[in-house]
Order: sequence, then structure tokens, then C-alpha cells
Amino acid sequence: MEKKALKIAVIGGGSSYTPEIVEGFIKKYPEMPIRELWLVDIEQGRHKLEIVGELAKRMVEKAGLPIEVHLTLDRREAIAGADFVTTQMRVGLLEARRRDEHIPISYGVIGQETTGPGGMLKALRTVPVILDICKDIEELAPNAWMLNFTNPAGIVTEAVQKYSKVKTVGLCNSPINFQKFLAKQYGVTEGEVLPEFVGINHLHWVTAAYVHGEDKLEEMINGGKDYSATNVTAFDWDADFLTSLNAIPTYYLRYFYMTNTMFNEMKTSLEKNGTRADVVSRVETELFELYKDVNLSEKPKQLEQRGGAYYSEAAVNLMHSLYTDKKDIQTLNVRNNGILDFLPDDASIEVNCVVTGQGPIPIPPQRVPEGIKGLIHAVKTYESLTIEAAISGDKGIALQAMVHHPLVPDVAVAKPMLEEMLEANRSYLPRFFDGK
Amino acid sequence: MEKKALKIAVIGGGSSYTPEIVEGFIKKYPEMPIRELWLVDIEQGRHKLEIVGELAKRMVEKAGLPIEVHLTLDRREAIAGADFVTTQMRVGLLEARRRDEHIPISYGVIGQETTGPGGMLKALRTVPVILDICKDIEELAPNAWMLNFTNPAGIVTEAVQKYSKVKTVGLCNSPINFQKFLAKQYGVTEGEVLPEFVGINHLHWVTAAYVHGEDKLEEMINGGKDYSATNVTAFDWDADFLTSLNAIPTYYLRYFYMTNTMFNEMKTSLEKNGTRADVVSRVETELFELYKDVNLSEKPKQLEQRGGAYYSEAAVNLMHSLYTDKKDIQTLNVRNNGILDFLPDDASIEVNCVVTGQGPIPIPPQRVPEGIKGLIHAVKTYESLTIEAAISGDKGIALQAMVHHPLVPDVAVAKPMLEEMLEANRSYLPRFFDGK
Amino acid sequence: MEKKALKIAVIGGGSSYTPEIVEGFIKKYPEMPIRELWLVDIEQGRHKLEIVGELAKRMVEKAGLPIEVHLTLDRREAIAGADFVTTQMRVGLLEARRRDEHIPISYGVIGQETTGPGGMLKALRTVPVILDICKDIEELAPNAWMLNFTNPAGIVTEAVQKYSKVKTVGLCNSPINFQKFLAKQYGVTEGEVLPEFVGINHLHWVTAAYVHGEDKLEEMINGGKDYSATNVTAFDWDADFLTSLNAIPTYYLRYFYMTNTMFNEMKTSLEKNGTRADVVSRVETELFELYKDVNLSEKPKQLEQRGGAYYSEAAVNLMHSLYTDKKDIQTLNVRNNGILDFLPDDASIEVNCVVTGQGPIPIPPQRVPEGIKGLIHAVKTYESLTIEAAISGDKGIALQAMVHHPLVPDVAVAKPMLEEMLEANRSYLPRFFDGK
Amino acid sequence: MEKKALKIAVIGGGSSYTPEIVEGFIKKYPEMPIRELWLVDIEQGRHKLEIVGELAKRMVEKAGLPIEVHLTLDRREAIAGADFVTTQMRVGLLEARRRDEHIPISYGVIGQETTGPGGMLKALRTVPVILDICKDIEELAPNAWMLNFTNPAGIVTEAVQKYSKVKTVGLCNSPINFQKFLAKQYGVTEGEVLPEFVGINHLHWVTAAYVHGEDKLEEMINGGKDYSATNVTAFDWDADFLTSLNAIPTYYLRYFYMTNTMFNEMKTSLEKNGTRADVVSRVETELFELYKDVNLSEKPKQLEQRGGAYYSEAAVNLMHSLYTDKKDIQTLNVRNNGILDFLPDDASIEVNCVVTGQGPIPIPPQRVPEGIKGLIHAVKTYESLTIEAAISGDKGIALQAMVHHPLVPDVAVAKPMLEEMLEANRSYLPRFFDGK
Repeated sequence: MEKKALKIAVIGGGSSYTPEIVEGFIKKYPEMPIRELWLVDIEQGRHKLEIVGELAKRMVEKAGLPIEVHLTLDRREAIAGADFVTTQMRVGLLEARRRDEHIPISYGVIGQETTGPGGMLKALRTVPVILDICKDIEELAPNAWMLNFTNPAGIVTEAVQKYSKVKTVGLCNSPINFQKFLAKQYGVTEGEVLPEFVGINHLHWVTAAYVHGEDKLEEMINGGKDYSATNVTAFDWDADFLTSLNAIPTYYLRYFYMTNTMFNEMKTSLEKNGTRADVVSRVETELFELYKDVNLSEKPKQLEQRGGAYYSEAAVNLMHSLYTDKKDIQTLNVRNNGILDFLPDDASIEVNCVVTGQGPIPIPPQRVPEGIKGLIHAVKTYESLTIEAAISGDKGIALQAMVHHPLVPDVAVAKPMLEEMLEANRSYLPRFFDGK
Repeated sequence: MEKKALKIAVIGGGSSYTPEIVEGFIKKYPEMPIRELWLVDIEQGRHKLEIVGELAKRMVEKAGLPIEVHLTLDRREAIAGADFVTTQMRVGLLEARRRDEHIPISYGVIGQETTGPGGMLKALRTVPVILDICKDIEELAPNAWMLNFTNPAGIVTEAVQKYSKVKTVGLCNSPINFQKFLAKQYGVTEGEVLPEFVGINHLHWVTAAYVHGEDKLEEMINGGKDYSATNVTAFDWDADFLTSLNAIPTYYLRYFYMTNTMFNEMKTSLEKNGTRADVVSRVETELFELYKDVNLSEKPKQLEQRGGAYYSEAAVNLMHSLYTDKKDIQTLNVRNNGILDFLPDDASIEVNCVVTGQGPIPIPPQRVPEGIKGLIHAVKTYESLTIEAAISGDKGIALQAMVHHPLVPDVAVAKPMLEEMLEANRSYLPRFFDGK
Repeated sequence: MEKKALKIAVIGGGSSYTPEIVEGFIKKYPEMPIRELWLVDIEQGRHKLEIVGELAKRMVEKAGLPIEVHLTLDRREAIAGADFVTTQMRVGLLEARRRDEHIPISYGVIGQETTGPGGMLKALRTVPVILDICKDIEELAPNAWMLNFTNPAGIVTEAVQKYSKVKTVGLCNSPINFQKFLAKQYGVTEGEVLPEFVGINHLHWVTAAYVHGEDKLEEMINGGKDYSATNVTAFDWDADFLTSLNAIPTYYLRYFYMTNTMFNEMKTSLEKNGTRADVVSRVETELFELYKDVNLSEKPKQLEQRGGAYYSEAAVNLMHSLYTDKKDIQTLNVRNNGILDFLPDDASIEVNCVVTGQGPIPIPPQRVPEGIKGLIHAVKTYESLTIEAAISGDKGIALQAMVHHPLVPDVAVAKPMLEEMLEANRSYLPRFFDGK
Repeated sequence: MEKKALKIAVIGGGSSYTPEIVEGFIKKYPEMPIRELWLVDIEQGRHKLEIVGELAKRMVEKAGLPIEVHLTLDRREAIAGADFVTTQMRVGLLEARRRDEHIPISYGVIGQETTGPGGMLKALRTVPVILDICKDIEELAPNAWMLNFTNPAGIVTEAVQKYSKVKTVGLCNSPINFQKFLAKQYGVTEGEVLPEFVGINHLHWVTAAYVHGEDKLEEMINGGKDYSATNVTAFDWDADFLTSLNAIPTYYLRYFYMTNTMFNEMKTSLEKNGTRADVVSRVETELFELYKDVNLSEKPKQLEQRGGAYYSEAAVNLMHSLYTDKKDIQTLNVRNNGILDFLPDDASIEVNCVVTGQGPIPIPPQRVPEGIKGLIHAVKTYESLTIEAAISGDKGIALQAMVHHPLVPDVAVAKPMLEEMLEANRSYLPRFFDGK
């Protein structure tokens, strides 16, 4: 059965990650031929789009593949008839991220891009924009899959699933990183391992780590083998805590399990190095300098230091399995549908799925430690309220979301902090400020 | 159909509350005749038992009722053949409460008798003692109802439901206080109002306030009618917060919704007045001075200032409805059984029940605000882990309970705090220290 | 708090049951004063409406009460501003019932008014008419309660709950009959007993029979005390079956548990006496002869032989509890909302409820025998499909409903039987036949 | 990572199916090397075991593989240290099957080996024997997987999961047959199709039929492509019924959806050809004649006519995936664990699973037609009661199981039929008759 060659639209195509996804498309070309690759960006991103777009063209040319690379500011042109649309964008650019990180710290609260008040404001800015894109997809490419790795990916994916008809899957690089780490630890291939993930995006636990069908979790925990990602400073987990938890928490859980420690580290780092946004800003400037080099026609090694390692590999793998009906197991953000029975059916969760040509089918985790259910539920509560606030522009609902976030300790903190953050994002929040 | 006169055993009978429950028995005598009232205490409480016991005898005598009042240190004698057993006790006495309140504060965490680390240690001390009592009840009074108002009442009740065959109900004075308040606000009798409670002990919300079948909740919230109890300093809730919450939180929720504010208030008060335990200690001394007066033969007015107002009324009402198969609605701590569908069936919850002669039948709340589910789930998670720790004496489980309590911000805080608190309670925690 | 006097509309007011409900209103008048009673019927029922309406007037007059009795064919006039609307009607009159009973028998299937194919056709005829009435209520009396005792009451009530905003409760006389029977058996008042019902309308089991809070179920089963209603010929249940079932099945369960026996009995009776419709027809003729007597000014004793004994008492009790916020327990057809956790939330079920001024709050049964869940689920499946068929006029869905009814043994029977029954009801089923 | 060669025990090794499983082992040898194959049978089966065992040895020899084939009547010797144990047996032999088929027909009820009263009695005989085998496995091969294809496979598997610690999976050839059929219809390999199954053993529906990720279900239904197995006479499904059902029912559903038709066909066939047991008996005699031929050293073609085609292929596939941690999708009988949310967690269901080295992980079906839930629930109810009866030997529970089976129409039929069937199986039902 022959399948037609694909059209792919990358929203936020001017991103510094683009060379990675292009590399992925080139590698998979024999099994997943692409006819057209559309890199889309907005006016403010035109310059970056041009630089990275030219690099993409050089990469394709060097590979000798008949992929047409299009650069455009016209989103609808890119989406029309696409088979896959990926979204990787930052509404408000790094400037907004800077504020998301700064303001909470000044109130004594964790200031982070995807977790806590920072993630909430990012969601409020992003959800309406994503839903606008979805309207275009509904109209111009109703059969397309939208692969979302725009953060906060769990919230954004849930919003699309609730308020649009677009077929969507949310993606994070955290699971694929763990899988690679596990395979490396045991000297086997990625296909020979199967970690089991429980939770929601940026709030998951590894509850089993099968290698050739044998669970190595306890060995990993007790052997002190620790897992570390590059985009969050590494702290060692307390060994007694890990043993009694009997699961490996994702890096982002440090914000919840080590709130004081992380807050202090952040505050110190902020004073010394500026926010993470500042750091990223410097790295990006350097990357784009590299990209400009007309002799460069492959993904530069430095990109791997950028933080989101393997994001694009995850995305390309997913497209590939959807395209070929591969039926392999990937960890994705999908509609709950009773898998975690204490969450609503329409909540997005991050779990292992079998990826068929019809889409991902979530697999129920074999074990959900009792202890973690409350935290998952509390954060999901905050997430759902945040979506409701983003859709309605209702300040009261936003206040409820903020107050019910486990990292926000007091209504007396939440209220002025929310006011300040909404005000600082005024130009990105028309639903909160229009007609007021 | 005639019913036999009752035997009642009050465990912790030397409590300063005893005159209130005796008054209740006297009032209900025509409908619920009592033959024997056994006040039991332990050796350390002998002196108080004698004082309050003599007062009880004078009260019964003055009322001219044929109730035999027995004072004893022999628990089994009191329990044998009882129809109702009530438990109101404090393992470790006020000295332990003092530590429960002090130590967390020194770690920057809320130090409170029933909420947070203090409540956890109180549970670890109390659960094994209560289960010992239950063994006696199973053997000597297998048909008795045990009415538990020993705190933390939710945890203690759940432990009994999980680890004993004794028929038990947990009780708190908070719901009856709200009911009386609501009736007073609207100038009607208590029978004409019906507040709807959702949650678990000391973590509940009023989600409807029916007066003659009409819901006055919104009016109460917007009218700024606030509800205040006497045993926790009153802060005003933020009006915007309350309006968007669309529910009235119980007083104990201030520890969660206003953590910083409450912590600071506690710390200041601690420095000025000592702990709440110190205050109670002074009040109790005064009360027992009054009780000694051989001319006193009724409950003194000063007892109403003590804090647990209407606790005994709630208890007597419950016995009365069980005894007469009254089928009225009371708010009680019972087994969940699917009522809150996101909690395990065997969790204890605090909801409205129809009280029949067979026991209370919980009524599903008509509305559970999405926003509060996460917090309820998180605290219930901590509670269940605490019970498991109390039963097993397993420090790892205790650490998990502590870390997953929403008021504990960091493993790096939880671990040394737990160590210090366990050590300080060593003599009350044989399961944690035996053979070690 | 004074409440205003009521306006009540009785749809199907020309029914022979009307004197019973009028008697009920008269008895409860002191606690529930009625200002206007509207008896409504359709043109074909005008004659009966006039006869029974005049009797109603004489009854009110004799009681000396200021209730205005209005007779009308204008439904909207009757509904406008009503506090309660009751519906008791038979779309297609006894002629349709005759067909519902006859046709299935000719296919070897139980032919009964509310159970099996007969009940299905009755539902197909009735649901659209009821929903038309509901539209009037939504418009003209949006705060009214609709008390439905139009059969099949479970299906009709579920349809209203799914497809209308009208506040509705479904009613059957079967539970009140059992309650009276139980009270009589034990020589106590009805208030002193509490049977527990599990199931759906005309398919319920008594799983507990509390008398003064003590469960007498086993005693009743083993003592061979049998419960019998007057509108279905009595067969004795097999004693071993009843003991191992450990519940008392409602009369209608004989169609399921004794299908052959009931079928044969029905067939024989049909040949001898005609259908039940024929019998009822004769009884009704006699009743209306009595009603015509201008000297009659009370409910005649003969009405009690009619079959639906205590239907009106159940209805008046319900209105009274809703009006007075009585908070007593009644067995009603209400939205499931998770009470029976294997059925959809929006299924109607028949269980005990606390009746407050806000409406009935269902109480979860304390025990649901595993054995009966499958049968309940199977019949509810049929019911939901029937509603969907009635709304859509889709023959395929109707076929699925028919085939999945436990009493229909074969697609090869279901299909022609359905065809014949639809055809026979053509004039009452515009949604199935319009434009075809 | 090297894996050790396997020991396999086949309980009921004297079965006529054995050559098929031996053929499967030979084919998969390169990926799944077997060291020892133990064929076990009981004394009555000694003759057949010897015949088929010698054939097995000749097959292995011809293939030139170092598999040791052992024949034994000592079950414990065969089980000790085994990696896989398969069970394929018939307690009571064909004689009992004959009675299971005959007796119900004489009461006007479907008489079938696995469905209805016949299946129930088969379960009552088999469950205790299987649990005895499980005790041996627990003791002698605690890490072994037991692959059960002893019928009624759903009930037997559920019994093992409830009453033993043995790791078990239930297997039926029906799903693999459909998969092969689907692949053949569309001219693709089996790996390129994915049918979705919903239900329980011998009571499932195909609700999706993916070919390269595209659902062909509607096309199959409307195109009239019908699926037929060889061990049940083929009737055509009614086209309108199938279209409105929007799912393809398994062959065994004809007993439920076409009860009259099937009953009549069975009765006629019984009179003409004897029972299915008689037919099988004749086929088996012929097969064993063939097996005796010392020149035969491969599976004879005639075996494919026997009825259970591909049973062994299903079993070998499952072992292979468990052994190699293959993570492919197979349709198996496993513990429900919330997958079908209206059934208990510990019910066995038949659904798609991902087979890892740890065992099968069930995948929630994407769609469960509302209409079929009731029937699944009703049959599962019967199954669970049957297990309870088999374990306890309680006649009352057996009566409840029989009465609640959807194919049994009347307590008045169920009771004498059960009595007669129990009596006829007396020697196989010690738990029902001991001490009585």
C-alpha cells in the first residue's frame, strides 16, 4: 500500500531548534518521504526564520533529497493541506519569559517557565493563539495531526482537545531522554527498554524501568543511578526519600519536592546570571551566529547544549509511527479517558501509548503510587482552571487557578502577584483587558 | 417497640468537656434514657477524673434522674456491654501538643494540633491507642457504636474503619457550629436549614446553604456574612477569593489558603503567649478550679469559651438519632464508598448523612467545585500514608506522608523535622523505635 | 416563613385515578394549601374529564375548602404559572395498549404495558408528547416541578432529564406499596420502616427492610412472607431462589425470572379474558358509571381495586415534601449521578432519596447484589436506546433497542415484530414515518 | 542478552491438537529455543498421549532440533521448573460434553460446550482441577506463565486470577482467526491489520478493523463481508441488524442474538447427527488413526478441519512475545483493571494487549457501543457467580448463576435443569456432594 509524500508545517519555524527537526526528517526520509516543508513564523521572527531557513535548505541540499523548503509569514498558506503541523512557539518572546521568571521570585514563589505562576501566565498568553491556529487547521487541513511541543505542553494540549476538533498530541523531550538514559545504563538499544511513566506533563514519575522485560527500577534507585537533564541545574535527590517513594520523579518535581532549595538556588542564580531566559538569550545569539555561516549544512553540535535535546527526535518518531502505523510505544500527552481514574476524562495526561495509524492509544500504567495522586490532582486542578481562565478572560477563575497551585502559599500573595503579572502581560491578554 | 436503657462509656472521661456531654444526656433523657454512664481515664488523669466525675454526679442528682455515674481507670469494665463508647483523649497530654506546635514552627512550617506535621505526630501517637481500645470493644461490646471525637478525627476514624470491626463514626463540632450560625443569620430553627458540606475532616467547604429549601450561599458570600469559630483567631477571607471560590471554606482551610499569614500570626503569638497548648492549659486549670466547687451542679458558662463548643451536642444528637432511628441529616465522618469519586472507597470523608438506626448513610453532595478536588486529594493522600506509617512504624512511609503534605515545602525540611518530632515522641511511638 | 398557596396542573386529568389525587390534596390541605387545581385532558378525553371533574368539584365542596377546580382542554392555560405539573396519560388510549399486549404474544414474547416490546412502543409514542408538554412548562412555568407517573415511568423520566430543562421526578406506586406492606407486617407506622430499593423503574429489588433500624429482610424471605400487588397476577416465588438471591424482587421481575410461566399465563388469560387492557377497560367503564352519581362526593372504594393503589398518595407526599422542605426519605426515579456506578450518570434510576425543598437527593444503596447488576444494565441499555429511537425516529436504533431487550430472544423475531408494531402505531409515530 | 532455552509443560498433552503446537514450536525455534517439551496427561488419556507423543517425537526429529520430548502421567515432574505451562483439557471427557449439550436442549435451552448451562457445568467441573494444577505451579514453577486455553477460557482464567498466585493469560483462537481473515480480505500481512475487540471470552465484538491504520469496519459490514469459523454452523447475520449495531459480533453471539434459530438448528442437528460432542468424537478417532502412522512426521492437514484452527499458533505467538519482550499487540483474556469501567476490576476480559516480557498490558478499547454493555455485564455476572459456586460448592449460588444467565428463561426451568445437571456430573463435583 503506497502512501503519498507529506506536507509538513512547522509553526515557529524560526526557532533555534529547527535544524534538529530538519535533521530528523532527513534521516527518516526513506521511510517517511516529505514533499514540502513549510517553516512559518511571525513578523518579529522574520530575521531568525531567514537565517535558520537558509540553513535548512542547505541541509536538505547536502542530503540530496527532493524536499521543498518554504519560508513564510503566511500561516494559512503553510497549513493548507498539511499532513502534520508542529507548533513550537513563545508568545511574548523571551521578554515575556523573563517576566514569568522574575515576578514570582519577587513574591517569594518559584519563577519558572512552565511550572507555577510563570507557566500559568505563559498558558494564558499561549492558549488563545494556539486555538486560532487550530481554527485554521480545522478549515484548511482537517485531517492533519497537530504535534504540540509548545509549553506548557500539558495545558496547551488539553486546551486544544477541549476547544477544537483538531487531532492533537502533546510532546515533551523528558520521556525520550529517560529512555535513552536507561538504555545507555544497561548497554542495550532504546527498543529493548520500556520505562513506565505516570502523571501529567512536567509532573511525572517513572514507576517501572523494564530492560528486556525485567524491572530495574529498584536497582536504579538503590544503586543511586541518578538521571539528569541539561536544562535544569542538578540536585541530588535524597536517597531515603527516593527509596520510600519507589519511583523516579521527573526533574520538574524538584520544584514541588524541594521548593525551598530550588527557590534559593533560583534567587541566587538570578542575581548572578539573570534568569534562565537571559541565559537562553545568550545561547540563542551564539547559535544564530553559527547558523549564518553559509558553509554550515548540518545541525551544529552546540545545539545539543541548548536544553531541549531530543525534542525533535521525539516529534519525528511520532510522525513516523503515525505515518507507518507502527504500533510502537511512545510517551505522549493525550486525553485521559479514564486511564488515571481520579482525573476527569478530558484532562490531558502523559503516559505510554501505542502509536497506530489512527493515533496514540494510551496504556494504563500498571501501578500508580497512592502518595502521588494528590499532587497530580492538585496540579491538574490548577491546569484546568487556567484553561478556563484563558478562554474566558475571567480574573476570578485566574485567581482560583493561582491560589490552588501547590507552589502558591497564600491568597495574600496570589492576588497582588496575579494582578502584577496580568498587567505586565496586558498586550498579550486581550480577553482579560478588552473593554475594561 | 420498647428500647432498653443505655450503657455509655466515655473514654477520656476526665476531660474538661465532660460536663457538656453530661448536660446533653440529661436534656435528652426522656427520649434516650441512660442507665449507666462510665467515665474512664488513665492513671495520669485520675485527679481530673475525680473532680469532673463528682460534678457529673451532682448534675445528675440535681436533675433527679436515675443515671448511675461510674468513675474508673479500668477501661474494660467500662466498655463491657456498652451501647455507645465515645473517645475524647490526648495521647501525650498537653505536653505533646506543645511539641507538635513548637517544632514545625522552628522549621518554618505551620505548627498546629490537627493540621500539618503536628497533626501527623498526634495521629502517629493516637492511632495505636485507639486500635487497642477497639480490640476491647470488639471483644466486650461488639454491637456498640464508637463515636470518635479524638483528633485528628478524620485520620483516627479512617484507621478504625480500616483496621477494626468496630462500628464507628467520626465527629467534629465545626458542621454543627455552621448550622447554628446559618439558622441564627436567617432567624429560623436549626431544623429549617441544611448546609451542604464537601470534603474531609478539618478540610471542608460549605457548597450550599439551604434555608427552607432555598440556597442562600451566594447571598452569604456576597453579603460578607462571615463565619467564625472561637478556637482559631479570625482573619477575614479575601472577598474576591471567596466570590470566585463560590463556597465557604472551613476555618482550618486558612492554614492552606493563607499559609504565610497564619504562620506569621502563629509565630508572633507563640513568642507572646506561648502555644495554643499553653493557652488551653491555663483555661483548663481555671475550669477545674470551678468544677471543684461542691455547690456547682451544672455546666459552667465558662466552658463555652473553651473552644470545642457544641462538640457534645453533636455527639448526643448522633446517639439519639442512632437510638431512635430518626433519619435526620447530620454531618459526619464516614467511609467514602464512592461518594467522592476521586478518593478511595475506604477513605473517611466528612459529608451529610441520613442517620438511621443502622448507622449513617452518606448523601452525595450535589456539587463539588473542581478547584478543591486536588487539595482534598492531596491531604487525603497524606492522611492515608500517615495511617500506614502509624500501623507499620515504617519511617520511610512516614517520610512520604510528611513530604506529600501540602504544607511541607521541601524534602530537606521534612526529613530533619520528622526525625526531631519522632525522637521527641519516642516514648509514645513503640512501633517506630522498638528493637532499634 | 410563609409560603404561597399553590397552583397544580394535572395532565390527563380525566383519568379514573383523579379522585384519589383529589382526596390526597384535601387531606394535606392544612400543610399544603392549594389555590387552583387544573384538570387538563385532550379532546378524546373530554367526556371522562367532565365526569371526573364534576366529582372533584363535589369532593372539594364537601370538604369545605377554597380550592378552585378548573377543567380545560387548553394545556397551556393549565400549565401557566403552575407550581406542580403531574402527568398521567396514555398516548393512543387503551386501544394502543391492547396492541402492545397482543402483538408480542403472537411472536412468543411477553406482551405487557411497561415491560418488553409493549413498553418500548408505549415509550416511542409517549416520549415526544411528554417533551412537547415540557416545552410548555419551560416557557410558562419554568420553576414548576413535573411529577411524572406516565409509564414507562423510568424511560419517560430519563427522556425529560436528557432532553429538557424541566425539573422532573418519576414516580411509581410500587415502593409505597412495599413500605405500607412492611409496616403492616410488623405492626408499626410507615415512618418507622425504611426499605432499601435498588434498581430502575419496574426492575427493582428490596435489599434491606429496616424496622426501627433493624433489618428484617432475611426474616421476611425465610418466613415466606410474600409481597403481592393487585395489578399483576400473583405467582409464588421459588423459596430457594429467593433465599439465595437474598433480596425481594419487585413484581415486574417475574417477567424476567419466570418468563415461560408468565408468558403461558398471559396467553391463557388472553384467550379467556382478553388482554389486561380489556380488563381495565371494563373496570374503567364501571368506575365512570359510579363517578356520574351526583350524590357521590368522595373517592369510591372500588377505585382501590383498579390497580394503581397509592399512586396518588405517593404523588401528594412528594409534593408535600418538596413544598415543606421536609427532608424525609422517598423512593423516586431520579438521575443516577454515580449512585449505581455501572450505569451512565444520566440514566434514571429508582432509589431512596431525601426530599428537600431543592428536590430529591438520591442516597446510595448500602448493598447492590452482584447478581442483579447485569440485568439492570441490560434493561437500562434497552431503555437508553429506546429514548434515542424515540427522539430520532431511527428504525436501526429501534431495532438495536428491541434486540438488546432481555426478553426478546432472536433478531429473527425482533425485526418483523418491530415492523408490525411500528406500523400498527403509525399515526402516533410521526418521527418514524414522516417523509417516508 | 542471552536467554536460557525453555522448558514447556503441556497439560492435556494427549490432545489431538498437540501436533499443531509442536509444529509451532519447531517454526519459532530459532527465536525461541526449547530444551524440554513435556506432554502430560491422565491415566484415561494414556493411549492417546502415547500416539500423539510419538508423532511429536518424529516431528522434532525430522526438523533436526535438539528438543527433548517427554511423555508423562506425572504432572508435578512436568511442571517442575517449567517456563510455560499450557492447559488444554476436558474434565469428564467427551462424555461430559455430551451431557452438557443434551440436557439443556431437553429443557428448551441452548446446549453448548462453553455458552449457557453447558458451559456452566463445564466450569464447575474444571475450575477445581485447574486450581489444583495451579497449586503445583505455585510450588514447583512459581515464575512460570500459565497459558490457559481450557474452556470456558474466560471463567477459568478469572478463577485462576482470583484464587491463585500463578501468572496466567487466557487464550482463544477466535481473535487470531479474525485477524487472519481481515488480512486476507485486504491482501496485507497480519502485522498490517489491527482489529479492536471489546468484550469477554466468547462474547466479544469487533468495533474497529484497522488496515494500515484506516478503519475498514463500515466497509466490511456494508459490503456484506461475513466472517465464518469452522466450528459453528454458519448463519448469515441480518444486514440491518449488523449495520445498526456497527460492530461485528463473534460467532458465539449467535446464541444470544439468534436464540430461537440456533436452538432449533441444534435440536434438529442433535436428532440427525448427535451432539457436537459426537461429531468431534468421530473426527478425533480418525485423527488418531492418522497419528498412528509411523511414516507421518508432520501435522496432518486434516487437523485444520477439527475446529480449533490457530489455537496453537496463538499460544506459540504469546510465548514468543513474552520470551522476547516483543511489545506487539495480541488479543487476550486478562484482568479487567478498569479497562471496561462497568465491570469489576478482577473480572477477566478479552481485549487487545501489548505483550511485554512482564506480561500483557491491556489497552482500553477506543469505543464500546452502549448497546452491548448490558449483555456483557449480564454474562459476566453469571460467570462470576459460577466461579463462586465452583469454589464453594454452594447450590444456592449455582442457582443464582443459572437464573441470571441470559439464555435461561425461567426459575422454573433453571432449578430442575440445574439439579439434573449437577446430579449427572456428581463424580466430578465433590464440593457439591461431599458429606451430603
